[in-house]
Amino acid sequence: MAKPHKAGAAREIGRMEAFSDGVFSIAITLPIVELSVPHIAAGGTLMGAIGHEWPTYLAYGLSFLVIGVYWVHHHFTGKIYARADHGFVLANMFFLAAVAFVPFPTRLFTEYLADPANRGAASVVYTVSLAIPTWAWVLKWLYARRTRAMDLRLDDAYLDKLTRTYVITAWLMLGAVALSFLDWRVGLGLAAALTLYHLRAPPWPVYEAAEAGRPSPEAEQT
Amino acid sequence: MAKPHKAGAAREIGRMEAFSDGVFSIAITLPIVELSVPHIAAGGTLMGAIGHEWPTYLAYGLSFLVIGVYWVHHHFTGKIYARADHGFVLANMFFLAAVAFVPFPTRLFTEYLADPANRGAASVVYTVSLAIPTWAWVLKWLYARRTRAMDLRLDDAYLDKLTRTYVITAWLMLGAVALSFLDWRVGLGLAAALTLYHLRAPPWPVYEAAEAGRPSPEAEQT
Amino acid sequence: MAKPHKAGAAREIGRMEAFSDGVFSIAITLPIVELSVPHIAAGGTLMGAIGHEWPTYLAYGLSFLVIGVYWVHHHFTGKIYARADHGFVLANMFFLAAVAFVPFPTRLFTEYLADPANRGAASVVYTVSLAIPTWAWVLKWLYARRTRAMDLRLDDAYLDKLTRTYVITAWLMLGAVALSFLDWRVGLGLAAALTLYHLRAPPWPVYEAAEAGRPSPEAEQT
Amino acid sequence: MAKPHKAGAAREIGRMEAFSDGVFSIAITLPIVELSVPHIAAGGTLMGAIGHEWPTYLAYGLSFLVIGVYWVHHHFTGKIYARADHGFVLANMFFLAAVAFVPFPTRLFTEYLADPANRGAASVVYTVSLAIPTWAWVLKWLYARRTRAMDLRLDDAYLDKLTRTYVITAWLMLGAVALSFLDWRVGLGLAAALTLYHLRAPPWPVYEAAEAGRPSPEAEQT
Repeated sequence: MAKPHKAGAAREIGRMEAFSDGVFSIAITLPIVELSVPHIAAGGTLMGAIGHEWPTYLAYGLSFLVIGVYWVHHHFTGKIYARADHGFVLANMFFLAAVAFVPFPTRLFTEYLADPANRGAASVVYTVSLAIPTWAWVLKWLYARRTRAMDLRLDDAYLDKLTRTYVITAWLMLGAVALSFLDWRVGLGLAAALTLYHLRAPPWPVYEAAEAGRPSPEAEQT
Repeated sequence: MAKPHKAGAAREIGRMEAFSDGVFSIAITLPIVELSVPHIAAGGTLMGAIGHEWPTYLAYGLSFLVIGVYWVHHHFTGKIYARADHGFVLANMFFLAAVAFVPFPTRLFTEYLADPANRGAASVVYTVSLAIPTWAWVLKWLYARRTRAMDLRLDDAYLDKLTRTYVITAWLMLGAVALSFLDWRVGLGLAAALTLYHLRAPPWPVYEAAEAGRPSPEAEQT
Repeated sequence: MAKPHKAGAAREIGRMEAFSDGVFSIAITLPIVELSVPHIAAGGTLMGAIGHEWPTYLAYGLSFLVIGVYWVHHHFTGKIYARADHGFVLANMFFLAAVAFVPFPTRLFTEYLADPANRGAASVVYTVSLAIPTWAWVLKWLYARRTRAMDLRLDDAYLDKLTRTYVITAWLMLGAVALSFLDWRVGLGLAAALTLYHLRAPPWPVYEAAEAGRPSPEAEQT
Repeated sequence: MAKPHKAGAAREIGRMEAFSDGVFSIAITLPIVELSVPHIAAGGTLMGAIGHEWPTYLAYGLSFLVIGVYWVHHHFTGKIYARADHGFVLANMFFLAAVAFVPFPTRLFTEYLADPANRGAASVVYTVSLAIPTWAWVLKWLYARRTRAMDLRLDDAYLDKLTRTYVITAWLMLGAVALSFLDWRVGLGLAAALTLYHLRAPPWPVYEAAEAGRPSPEAEQT
C-alpha cells in the first residue's frame, strides 16, 4: 500500500503545479485586454493619443514583471516541495488568488500616478497588494516545513536559509505598507526594491551528503 | 491488443484532466477582468471610490473560493477515476460548463446584495448556480460507477461512502434552492455551508487489502 | 540517429496537443466575460432583466457545445496521429483559429435571433462559421493521411472509414451554407444536426491484426 | 549529486515550456474578446454592419498568424534547448511579454489602416512591435549559446546556421523599423515579408556523427 500512497502524493504536486502554472500564465497575459485603441482628440495626433495611454502600458509591464518574479520562484520551489496534502493545496489556492489579483491594483496605481491628489492612496493600495502575496507565500512555505512536505533529501541548513529569506521579505513588505502610510514614495520604493531583489537567482538546492548520489523518483519525472 | 487499449484509456484520463485543469484555471482567473479602476465622484476620495466597488472584490473572492473547492475535489477524484469513455467525457464537459458559469451569478449576487428590492432574486439565481455543478458532479460520478470507470483496486465501501457524500450534498443543494424561494437568507446560508463543508479534506483512498502492494500503471505516471 | 528523430517527432505531437488543449480551454471559457450583470429598466424586475439577456446565455451554451464537440474529436484523434511535421502544425494552427473564432458568430446569431429583419443574415454567418472548422479539420486529416502521419499500426479500413465521415460532414456543411442562403432555417438546421451527430462516440481504433500485441512507444506516454 | 542536478535542469525546461505554451495559447486566443456584435446604423443592414468591423477580424487573423509563427519556432527550439538557468528563464519571460503584447499594436494598426491621416503612425508602431520579439528571441538564443544551454549532441555548424538566421532577421527587422519612418508601406512590407518567411519549416536538427546513435534522456520524455 505504500507505493500507491507515494505515487498519489507525487501526482498531487505535479497536477497542482500544472494548475498553478495555468493560473500564472492567464494572470500574466490577461492585462493585455485592458489596452484599448485610443481615440484621437480633436486637433491631436495618434502618437499623442498613444502616449496619453502610458499608464496602461506601464501597468502591463509592471504586472508582467511582478507575476513573472513570482512564477520564477514558484517554479523553483517546485523542486523543493515533494508532497502536497490538503492544507497545502488550500494555502496554494490562497497564494494564487493573491497573485492573480495583482494586475488590478497595478492598473489603479499607474492610472492615478499622475494625479497628485490621489496617487498617495493608489500607492498605498498597490503596496498592500504587493505585500499580500509575500505573506501567502510564507504561509505556504511554513505550512510545508511544519508538515515535512519538502524533499527529505534536502539539507536542513539550506531550507533554513530559504525560510529566513522568505520571512524577512514578508516582514519588510509589511514595513513597506506601514511606511507607505507616512510617505508613499518610501513605502513603494521599499516594496519595489524587494521585488527587484527577488529577480536574482534563488540559491541552488543543497542535498544532504549521504543522500547525494541517490536520484529521487520525482526528479526523474520532469 | 489489450495493451494499446489500456494505454489509450489511461491517456484519455490524463489529457481530459489537463484540459479540465485548463478550463478551471481560466474560469478562476478571468473574474479579475471585471475589476475596473474606479472614477472618483465629485467631492469624493479614491479610497471612497475603491470602497464603493466592494461587490466586485467580493465576487472575485467568492468565485475563487467556489471554483477552488471544485478544483480540489476534481483534482482529488483524478486519483479515483481510471478510465474515461465517451459518455464520461461528455458528462465532464457539462460539469465544466456549469463550473465556468459560476462567476456570472456570483457577480449578479454581489452587485445586488445591497439593493433590498432585488437581492432576494439575485440570491435565488446564485443559489441555483451553486446547485447545478453539484448535480453535474453527481451525474459524472454515478456514470463512472455504473460503467466501472474507477480504479478497480479501490475498496467498494470507500467508493460507497463518497457516493453518499456527493448524493446527499446534491439533494441538500436542491433543498437550498427550494428554501431560497421562501427566504433567500436560509437558502443561500445552506448552500454556503455546504460549499464550506467541502473545504475539508476528502477521505484518503482505501485500497482493497489483497491488492495493496501492487502499484498501478496510472499511479506511476503522474 | 533514428532514435532522436523518432523521439523528436513524438514530442512534437505531445506539445502540439498540449498547446491545442490550451487554446480549446480558453476558447470554451472566454465567452463567460460577455455575460454582464443586467441593469433593471424603470418599473422592471431583476428576473425580467436577467431573462431579457437570454441571447448571451444561449451563446455561452452553444459555444461550449460546439467547441466541446471539437475538443472531443481533437482529443480522440490524438490517439490516431503519431507524427507532426511542419505542415501539420500549420494546418492545426489554422484549425485552432477557426475553432477559437466560433464564439463571435455565435453571439451574433443569438443576439439577432429575435430580430426578424436580421436573423436570416446572422444565421448565414453562423452557419458559415460552423462550416469552416469542418473544412480545416478535413484539411488537417487529409494532410496527415497523405504524409502517413497516422499511427502505422492502425487498420487502413478503419482510417478510410474516418476519412469518409469527415469528408462527407464537410461537404454537407458546405451544403448547409448554400441552403442557408435560400432558407436560413433549413441551412442552420442541417448544420446543427451535423454538430449534434458528432456528439456520438467516434469509432474505437482498430489495429492491424499482426501488430496487435505490440505496444507503441507513444501509447505508453500518456 | 550529479543526477539530481541534471534532472532538475531538465525539469526546468519542461515546466518553462509548459508555462510558455500557456502564455502563447492565451495570447493567441484572447483577441476574440475584442470582436463585439455590431449594432446596425439607421437604414443599414446587418451585413453592412459586420463588414464595417473588418479591422477587428483582420486584427484577429494577423495576431493569430504572428503569434502562431512564434509558437512554431518556440516549439521547435524546445528540441534545441536542453538546460535553462535563471538568466534564460528571465530572457524567456521578456520574450513572452513581447509576444503577448502583439495583439494591441495589431488592433491599433488595423483600426487606423483606413484613416489616411494616421495609418502611417499606426504602421510604425506595429512595425516596432513586430521587431521587438525578434530581438527578445535573439537575446534568448545568444544567451543560451553563451551558457552552452543547447543539447550538446547538436552539430555546431547547425547551431551557427540558426544563429545567422535569427540575427539577420532581427537586424532586418530593425531596418524595417527605420524604413517605416521614411515610408510605412516599405517598412511594414519588409516586416511582413520576414514574418511570412518564417512560416517555412525550420531546418531539421543535425546531430554530431559520433553521438548519433545515442538517445538523449530529454528526447525520451516528451
